[in-house]
Amino acid sequence: MQPDLLHRADAAHALQHFRTLSPLVHCMTNDVVQTFTANVLLALGASPAMVIDEQEAAQFSAIADALLINVGTLTADRARAMRAAIDSANTAGKPWTLDPVAVGALTFRSDFCKELLALRPAAIRGNASEILALAGMSAGGRGVDTTDHAQAALPAAQALARQTQAVVAVTGEVDYVTDGVRTLAVTGGDPLMTRVVGTGCALSAVVAASCALPGDRLTSVAAACSVMAQAGSRAVAASTGPGSFIPAFLDALYALNGEDVA
Amino acid sequence: MQPDLLHRADAAHALQHFRTLSPLVHCMTNDVVQTFTANVLLALGASPAMVIDEQEAAQFSAIADALLINVGTLTADRARAMRAAIDSANTAGKPWTLDPVAVGALTFRSDFCKELLALRPAAIRGNASEILALAGMSAGGRGVDTTDHAQAALPAAQALARQTQAVVAVTGEVDYVTDGVRTLAVTGGDPLMTRVVGTGCALSAVVAASCALPGDRLTSVAAACSVMAQAGSRAVAASTGPGSFIPAFLDALYALNGEDVA
Amino acid sequence: MQPDLLHRADAAHALQHFRTLSPLVHCMTNDVVQTFTANVLLALGASPAMVIDEQEAAQFSAIADALLINVGTLTADRARAMRAAIDSANTAGKPWTLDPVAVGALTFRSDFCKELLALRPAAIRGNASEILALAGMSAGGRGVDTTDHAQAALPAAQALARQTQAVVAVTGEVDYVTDGVRTLAVTGGDPLMTRVVGTGCALSAVVAASCALPGDRLTSVAAACSVMAQAGSRAVAASTGPGSFIPAFLDALYALNGEDVA
Repeated sequence: MQPDLLHRADAAHALQHFRTLSPLVHCMTNDVVQTFTANVLLALGASPAMVIDEQEAAQFSAIADALLINVGTLTADRARAMRAAIDSANTAGKPWTLDPVAVGALTFRSDFCKELLALRPAAIRGNASEILALAGMSAGGRGVDTTDHAQAALPAAQALARQTQAVVAVTGEVDYVTDGVRTLAVTGGDPLMTRVVGTGCALSAVVAASCALPGDRLTSVAAACSVMAQAGSRAVAASTGPGSFIPAFLDALYALNGEDVA
Repeated sequence: MQPDLLHRADAAHALQHFRTLSPLVHCMTNDVVQTFTANVLLALGASPAMVIDEQEAAQFSAIADALLINVGTLTADRARAMRAAIDSANTAGKPWTLDPVAVGALTFRSDFCKELLALRPAAIRGNASEILALAGMSAGGRGVDTTDHAQAALPAAQALARQTQAVVAVTGEVDYVTDGVRTLAVTGGDPLMTRVVGTGCALSAVVAASCALPGDRLTSVAAACSVMAQAGSRAVAASTGPGSFIPAFLDALYALNGEDVA
Repeated sequence: MQPDLLHRADAAHALQHFRTLSPLVHCMTNDVVQTFTANVLLALGASPAMVIDEQEAAQFSAIADALLINVGTLTADRARAMRAAIDSANTAGKPWTLDPVAVGALTFRSDFCKELLALRPAAIRGNASEILALAGMSAGGRGVDTTDHAQAALPAAQALARQTQAVVAVTGEVDYVTDGVRTLAVTGGDPLMTRVVGTGCALSAVVAASCALPGDRLTSVAAACSVMAQAGSRAVAASTGPGSFIPAFLDALYALNGEDVA
């Protein structure tokens, strides 16, 4: 089954929707990427909020438009608060997205992520090693970095999508986004983005926000990948290394409009 | 009661005092804004330190010149440590400042903030929705963002100042700073600052530091708002989006001197 | 005993080794500097990962090439997880590095750091006040900043190195790196670096990573100091304040090659 390329017009349409809706995104994410994640969402016109206490997290995920669960710096306390937030989001009919950072090599997060698969995530975003590990097809990468190509994880992504009913995005040089039946491919981006912490985690937050958009979810998630990749390509062209990439990337996300994307 | 405009000469004077005193600021703030808060204080010549363990927080707030309490990512552990730090600061005669992030919508932090109002804060800094909620006049904003204008919250700010004896700053397009009797208005800044996470939280840290200055506290707090607004305006002029705003803002804070402000 | 200057050729050689080996660095560091630390390591070609749960930390430090322990925002939970990670690193024969942030003034971290000295650190990196306090020769600095010159702490650093068998780096205007017998001096850097949060903490992460290199550890640690100082000098020349310093510094670290250093 050959993946289709995401239509540029669909990405442009989704970006316009995103800026108009300005989704309120409840981010339960890791310590390392919180600031960058918030700034990425703000640059795109969304409204991020990080709420982590168990009781408050449950309260807030019913109010927010979407929930992000990122296990990068998981602890027992945070796992409890995440479960409470997911339950509340599910009850309120709000979509939640899983970023299974470094799943596979580490037991606690691996068990936790597998438990979460039964709780109806709207989307899952990971690199090839993470998606392979989550689908039970490999032991995970080296630390938080992938040791596999996205294409090699496409069958795992498709199986995971069918198992969970989630849209699964496996990202790398080319991103693949699948619901288990249809698969979209997204090109763009640059290897320099792997030299900046949080680009993948921030993409997961944009994916989470995109799940709050009306319309076809597969297209919305692929559009999120496309917007980030295009902003990344522009920022690389405007920068001289990973340091200057960061402000250039946020500026590019802020400036990007439907016409640019189409 | 019409607010007075802050005199530019007073702001210049306070900035010079700030750089000379170099206040040591104990920041108990949220996970998302710690780095930016520290860099803002450092750029202005202050000395930030984040100490969060309950025992150490109590020890450190007696040593530091000022304490900041920001409830953005409150947990039960942090609430305990914050109470200990406030008690210790009060005993040592050190001023402490409250930033009631997203108070109103979330029960745990709302109860906690209301409890703290009895513990003699030197200053309170929030957006309109937060100040209205803290004064018991509304249910709070949408996530961490305000849905009200600063001017609409001025009566609430004045009532809160009279109730707590704190200087209350309600910030927005125009900032209002009041002790319940006198009110100063501060103009400047730019809407782009709302697209960068932590500008409000960092302002609260500068307010906290300013409470350690000798002289009239109302003027010191208004001067803090003015310095941040002026650096913000300069940085917006020198940047092309929220990404390039961040380094430009820190550079502007670092370069700003009394003559610029006056 | 007069310190020797680090040979530029040795620093160049170490940098080349660093980029080739791409050490996987387990960072257990403070909340304020996590993003910057990760970005510094990524810019130099290393692979950082922050894993903080007690069980996972023990698991991961056996997999990683090196471990960093930074006590800046220590809590009882983190102390437990750090002990578990150190035990596991020691069992697996992986080097670990201590950054004793603000040791001396605060009891909990002071006791913890002294306890850790018996657990065979490969390296210790601190400012003069921290090294003096850790060696039991003074009461520590003002908050996280030093009140002493690096040279004044050199005897303390040498005593600490002999006591612990660690390579001890005491950094300041000139950095001194000692194993208790030999001492290397490293020049470069700029006072502006003290106006950016995390430059010292990120150096400790690079020191930790450098302990995973083959060859003479004293030289590797001094080379880490030299690479950071040289990138710092270049970044200061290319920036207009502490804000623009940050992206310029990451770009300089990314671009720096053996020829530049030699």
